[in-house]
Amino acid sequence: MYELYIANKNYSSWSLRPWVLLRGLGIPFDEKLVPFVGGAGVNWDAFRTFSPTGKVPCLSDGDTVVWDSLAIAEYLAERHAGVWPSDPLARAWARCAAAEMHSGFAALRSACTMNCGVRVRVDAPSEALRKDVARVDELWNEGLARFGGPFLAGAAFTAVDAFYAPVAFRIQSYGLRLGDTAMAYAQRLLDLPAMREWYEAALVEPWRDPEHEDEARDAGSWLQDLRAS
Amino acid sequence: MYELYIANKNYSSWSLRPWVLLRGLGIPFDEKLVPFVGGAGVNWDAFRTFSPTGKVPCLSDGDTVVWDSLAIAEYLAERHAGVWPSDPLARAWARCAAAEMHSGFAALRSACTMNCGVRVRVDAPSEALRKDVARVDELWNEGLARFGGPFLAGAAFTAVDAFYAPVAFRIQSYGLRLGDTAMAYAQRLLDLPAMREWYEAALVEPWRDPEHEDEARDAGSWLQDLRAS
Repeated sequence: MYELYIANKNYSSWSLRPWVLLRGLGIPFDEKLVPFVGGAGVNWDAFRTFSPTGKVPCLSDGDTVVWDSLAIAEYLAERHAGVWPSDPLARAWARCAAAEMHSGFAALRSACTMNCGVRVRVDAPSEALRKDVARVDELWNEGLARFGGPFLAGAAFTAVDAFYAPVAFRIQSYGLRLGDTAMAYAQRLLDLPAMREWYEAALVEPWRDPEHEDEARDAGSWLQDLRAS
Repeated sequence: MYELYIANKNYSSWSLRPWVLLRGLGIPFDEKLVPFVGGAGVNWDAFRTFSPTGKVPCLSDGDTVVWDSLAIAEYLAERHAGVWPSDPLARAWARCAAAEMHSGFAALRSACTMNCGVRVRVDAPSEALRKDVARVDELWNEGLARFGGPFLAGAAFTAVDAFYAPVAFRIQSYGLRLGDTAMAYAQRLLDLPAMREWYEAALVEPWRDPEHEDEARDAGSWLQDLRAS
């Protein structure tokens, strides 16, 4: 049985990607959640016991440790159908789009840190953030138009959707506006059973990490906190 | 015939990765070099004519455009032997290590920007840079020990070596010190015919991009410029 190490569901966008991929494809795994406590780096030594970089996600399969989210997707793709689209053209596109998220969108990731349970209005989006959001919009429209939807690379939910799943939570938390086609796709992601399961678990997590909370507060005007307690 | 769009050999570490992979594996391609001029973003519109992100590298194969370096590796892996190690364990490790470079090592990449032709002494490495260098050292030692060398994932040069090839130029340009095993591996990379070909072409390029030059000067004490003219 795979073991997937993740951090807080409320905060960890990297963890969400392989988690929602596994859950969305119905691949069984044991979830190992190790929460961030007291800011990044504080329990880095604990994370190092299962992950060579001290980061999550990390997949353990017997003696094999797969410590990067994109490498996890490729590892699973060698063992299960449906991780990437079966059509070669759609697969090449999906891998490019997933890899673009993996190395890019720094402004979106830092200015709108994932925090599933809060609602914040971004009063003054930076030029870099606007550019990242515009690129997401462009990319989603391209995929949906080219491969026919309802998912980014065609009829089925694949790894490229999993890689953009955190963006759907960011759109919801920070009230980001994309075009109608992209907004409808974001809502489809939020409505997936796996995404709803993640979201509901995020809302009832007891942990509050000061660093992540400050990042969300710094993003704009605090509107609402939907988390329990 | 593949067309590989790249930027300046002296500066573009992302371009080097698929270029040295293709050349190292003996896969024919047409090189399309479009130099950076006058700082990042200035000729972004020109780059957008062949790359949807306006970034390099970008591989064109007939009608298929593959616009990310890691996606290029996977695209090639579906079509050519030897891109990744044939052993599944080594392959999983290689993909993790390549993906870790793809999304990480921000301090190393920004503090020691690739500039093949110059020599700069880093007088005061930041804590983040030290940490990145230590992680490279750890990772290289792990791969070399575990898979027997002389390359990172075993006997053959594969995509994971291509992904760390720019680090070898950075070690040379900035006098970075790693342990003996890692330094010997960096030298092996520099001695590869494909790496020598790239380096020699970098030295005779006529272009100087102010932004990249400033980054190199900001890294420490300027020692030497080996470029022609």
